[in-house]
Amino acid sequence: MAVSDGGLTYDLGEYLQLGSSPDEREVVCVFRVATREDTSLEEAAAAMAAESSVGSWTPVGPAGQEAVRRLRARAFRIDGDLVHIAYPPELFEPGSLPQFLAALTGSVFGFTALPAVRLEDVRLPLPLVESFPGPHLGIAGVRRLLGVADRPLACATVRPKVGLSPREQAALVRETLLGGLDLVKDDEALTGQPSSPFDERVKHVAEAVREAERATGEPKGWCANITAGDAEEMVRRAEVVRAEGGKFVLVDFLTAGLAATATVRRHCQRLGLALFGHRAMHAVLDRPLRHGIDYRVIARWARLVGLDLVLVGAGAVRGEARREELRQRCRLLRDARVPAGDGLWYPQEWGRLKAVLPVASGALDPRHVWDLYEAMGKDAVFLFGGGCHGHPWGSRAGAEAIRAALEAAVAGIGPERAAASHPALAAALEYWSAYS
Amino acid sequence: MAVSDGGLTYDLGEYLQLGSSPDEREVVCVFRVATREDTSLEEAAAAMAAESSVGSWTPVGPAGQEAVRRLRARAFRIDGDLVHIAYPPELFEPGSLPQFLAALTGSVFGFTALPAVRLEDVRLPLPLVESFPGPHLGIAGVRRLLGVADRPLACATVRPKVGLSPREQAALVRETLLGGLDLVKDDEALTGQPSSPFDERVKHVAEAVREAERATGEPKGWCANITAGDAEEMVRRAEVVRAEGGKFVLVDFLTAGLAATATVRRHCQRLGLALFGHRAMHAVLDRPLRHGIDYRVIARWARLVGLDLVLVGAGAVRGEARREELRQRCRLLRDARVPAGDGLWYPQEWGRLKAVLPVASGALDPRHVWDLYEAMGKDAVFLFGGGCHGHPWGSRAGAEAIRAALEAAVAGIGPERAAASHPALAAALEYWSAYS
Repeated sequence: MAVSDGGLTYDLGEYLQLGSSPDEREVVCVFRVATREDTSLEEAAAAMAAESSVGSWTPVGPAGQEAVRRLRARAFRIDGDLVHIAYPPELFEPGSLPQFLAALTGSVFGFTALPAVRLEDVRLPLPLVESFPGPHLGIAGVRRLLGVADRPLACATVRPKVGLSPREQAALVRETLLGGLDLVKDDEALTGQPSSPFDERVKHVAEAVREAERATGEPKGWCANITAGDAEEMVRRAEVVRAEGGKFVLVDFLTAGLAATATVRRHCQRLGLALFGHRAMHAVLDRPLRHGIDYRVIARWARLVGLDLVLVGAGAVRGEARREELRQRCRLLRDARVPAGDGLWYPQEWGRLKAVLPVASGALDPRHVWDLYEAMGKDAVFLFGGGCHGHPWGSRAGAEAIRAALEAAVAGIGPERAAASHPALAAALEYWSAYS
Repeated sequence: MAVSDGGLTYDLGEYLQLGSSPDEREVVCVFRVATREDTSLEEAAAAMAAESSVGSWTPVGPAGQEAVRRLRARAFRIDGDLVHIAYPPELFEPGSLPQFLAALTGSVFGFTALPAVRLEDVRLPLPLVESFPGPHLGIAGVRRLLGVADRPLACATVRPKVGLSPREQAALVRETLLGGLDLVKDDEALTGQPSSPFDERVKHVAEAVREAERATGEPKGWCANITAGDAEEMVRRAEVVRAEGGKFVLVDFLTAGLAATATVRRHCQRLGLALFGHRAMHAVLDRPLRHGIDYRVIARWARLVGLDLVLVGAGAVRGEARREELRQRCRLLRDARVPAGDGLWYPQEWGRLKAVLPVASGALDPRHVWDLYEAMGKDAVFLFGGGCHGHPWGSRAGAEAIRAALEAAVAGIGPERAAASHPALAAALEYWSAYS
């Protein structure tokens, strides 16, 4: 069989084996594919299997052809516009997400004959999974750091995003933690601008965290955004956080990239720091329905590379489809074994990799706590921004409202009854009822 | 003015200032925006300026509001579906691409009211540009390494992509360099798989390069793919290359990420290594016409972060639109000042940042050399894969054909006349004439 791409011709018979089954040791990808009129889905599937393994647009010489035959990927199933491809594990370098991505996204997304390609899911075999470190603390470790065993954690991003001096931010952090939140975090856009030099921010905010711990008797945390232009500077910033007694750091794992995130993960273990993963730029990848990379795949990177906490979206959990998607993401991050079904085509084993704490975010306010708890359960973080600091009485009242909502939800108490005994919560529910 | 997004309401008057002009110290972004029926482009523009600077979906407390007013971005022009937004430079951390991306791609790509958003271009002000290192060798430095002053450079990627043992690869590299190419490179999918352990590959291939240098009397190079799961391992691999006398390393700058690439760039300067940038995953970002990030923007990251060479695509330079796009990419990478026009909305100054050598690639064979030379000129690398190793007489003949084509093109000699005195070139032109 031959297939053309922009005038190129591939000889592809070996790469298409419909009806064969993948075995447990193979990587399996599910791609959603749109083809040009002159290209069949079968041709596209074979060309994709070729170019993402060992094929080329023109035959090459005899060197290594025996090895190449064993390294061929094969398209084994076509279902509507979904193409399933199995890859021999020897194609991949153990423990390297950059290599994994280069192989799977290096050529096929640019094929002329395929106007759109979306990587919907990737099933990794257990030995490849276990070649990655995974989280070093995981959910249990993060709970130990914060002394909270039996409820979701509550976190707020500092607002405004950028512009506060280190002293102003420290004051806001203190208020928020005094109000009852477990965690605060820097915004993803706040790193080390001249208005908030990183080392100076750590000094002031770490002191505010200690004050809040003394005043409340509860362990507290601040996720310092150590994302920087250079991986070694990120490690240095983690060391600054540790030196000031900090317990959490934040990395923007897509904009900084997966190799730097892996480096930081390794140093976080050495330093005893929990690693919070922000996901700026994910919507560039996962938003289009016909092209890109689904968050099912990105969530796997997060667990493999070893984030202890990671954003999963959620918004206000509007609609059942959104809620089911959120549950699926939680399963991928938290469960040791994720069965097929509910939007996953293949089961995923996580072996000895610890669980990641999913962080719900996206214009949340205290009204949403009950729905989030129902959708995500206890092992989750609910993250607020304006929905804490925008409280009409200020950030401390916003935090009080969130904490009250959280404890009510866990205790099975509804919003109205909870609000009756918590004025800050009542004010929040009233204030934000103007928003849909 | 207020705008809704998924039921959220922003107060946005300050973020929309149509008719105002950006000044030279501001960052300017041009976004292509698709809006939902219930949202005007003006509302979308203002919401984007807000969320990518200091705004939030609900008003927040008084802390830092004075600073925030000075840090607001503003949409200043709407032209068809293009929204132009200007950002105060103080929003950005100097020298940090991860922070730059977090600010600009962190929220707006996920807006419910905007089904698609594409970052078409970014103009950076000169002080921000000069906060980045840029290439440490640049075009002149790479030419010095290879002793080639007056023609494009020719490079071939090893084929098959993965599966050759280090000894097999070394033999192929030797043949290719003996045939007359300046450079060979690893495929982006080849890093440190068990079939080709990195350190062992370096040992064998570096020896092959030295043999080819002795035999030809010409300096030669091999771009060893040091991309790894961890930034510090990438640095270690660069050191292995240097210890064996290597001159080039390759990094997949999108899959490894920009922070690790910056780290490698810094160590490349220390080690005297040229840095070749592969761009696997670019088509996930830049392929859709309505969503994502254009390669104009990605090419800027490449120059800022400091790649000495970077892939720019080209395919077989089919069609005038493709050729003009290629020329634009070359201007962004090579020129000290790029004027507006020809697909750029704003001029870009590069100050003291050196020039990057653009690498044309994409199913090229010797037939394409004349067109590439016309489109790109001398300061370019022409990169072949199957179009070298697929030569009917083998890799050495493929390299001879490419070198002959290159020297003919530069001397103003056409394919037919060149083929008359170069049998390997004649065979190549004949063989690949079966491909369109």
